[in-house]
Amino acid sequence: MTDKISDSLKHYEDLEPGLVIQLGITRVTKQMIIEFATEFDPFPFHLDEQAAKKSLLGGLAASGWQTAGLSLRLLVDAFLSKVDSRGGLGFSDLKWKRPVMVNDSITGTVTLTDLRQSESHPEWAIMTLEFDIRNQRDEPVMTMSLANLVGVANPKNKSAA
Amino acid sequence: MTDKISDSLKHYEDLEPGLVIQLGITRVTKQMIIEFATEFDPFPFHLDEQAAKKSLLGGLAASGWQTAGLSLRLLVDAFLSKVDSRGGLGFSDLKWKRPVMVNDSITGTVTLTDLRQSESHPEWAIMTLEFDIRNQRDEPVMTMSLANLVGVANPKNKSAA
Repeated sequence: MTDKISDSLKHYEDLEPGLVIQLGITRVTKQMIIEFATEFDPFPFHLDEQAAKKSLLGGLAASGWQTAGLSLRLLVDAFLSKVDSRGGLGFSDLKWKRPVMVNDSITGTVTLTDLRQSESHPEWAIMTLEFDIRNQRDEPVMTMSLANLVGVANPKNKSAA
Repeated sequence: MTDKISDSLKHYEDLEPGLVIQLGITRVTKQMIIEFATEFDPFPFHLDEQAAKKSLLGGLAASGWQTAGLSLRLLVDAFLSKVDSRGGLGFSDLKWKRPVMVNDSITGTVTLTDLRQSESHPEWAIMTLEFDIRNQRDEPVMTMSLANLVGVANPKNKSAA
């Protein structure tokens, strides 16, 4: 299953639980907030500063789903693009802890908390990745747990390629 | 707390568990898939048809996060824009059941499975909304459970406005 591209990527065998991935940082501008909300989450508190001031959020704030998408992108850049990722299975326990306001930045860490080879598909393993997303004041913004497939370089039940 | 805008919206008192919301339908084009993946989920299987054919997905497929965002938008249009929504708290048990391929459509239902007034903030209630997202062949694509705040028109612990 390995090819020239994936030979340079990390596989199941190169990873172990406990790995902490430091994410880069993304600044969230007013334009980004409005563009995303217009497409996916068109509420006044994501689109209009005056309406946002009167809302629970207290000012123009990013859709929580945008925070999730931007966090995914940070994880791709810092980690998933360097492993033989085969895509996500789902995630659980996503919690929005604090709004992301105009010109806030998001960063944080992702910890590989579990890694197990699939019994039915020994060429895959399932990584559990716990996100701890923070703003520029190191305040918690979002947590979630992602299940993502990674390739196994030498599946036990198969002859070596 | 009610104002002219929210007077026309449904509140906690107008809702009850068991409500089934029929979503509209969104067709997912190649351009949509590539634009979203370029920004949030830049993997070859979301960007390049040849690479996608060799992947687990079997062809160019939308990022699962795009499916989530598009599903949110369907819920806003069908329901959340008609209630006094105060924003999401988080979600759980998101599972991608099947890829969304180029020119697939997504639709489905969302069921209000739980509704309870907040004890600490009696002006809010928490709705649990269970998504059952399907493609044009009625095959399951994604499930998830969203917790979202809705305004209470007449909080018990407060005098009427």
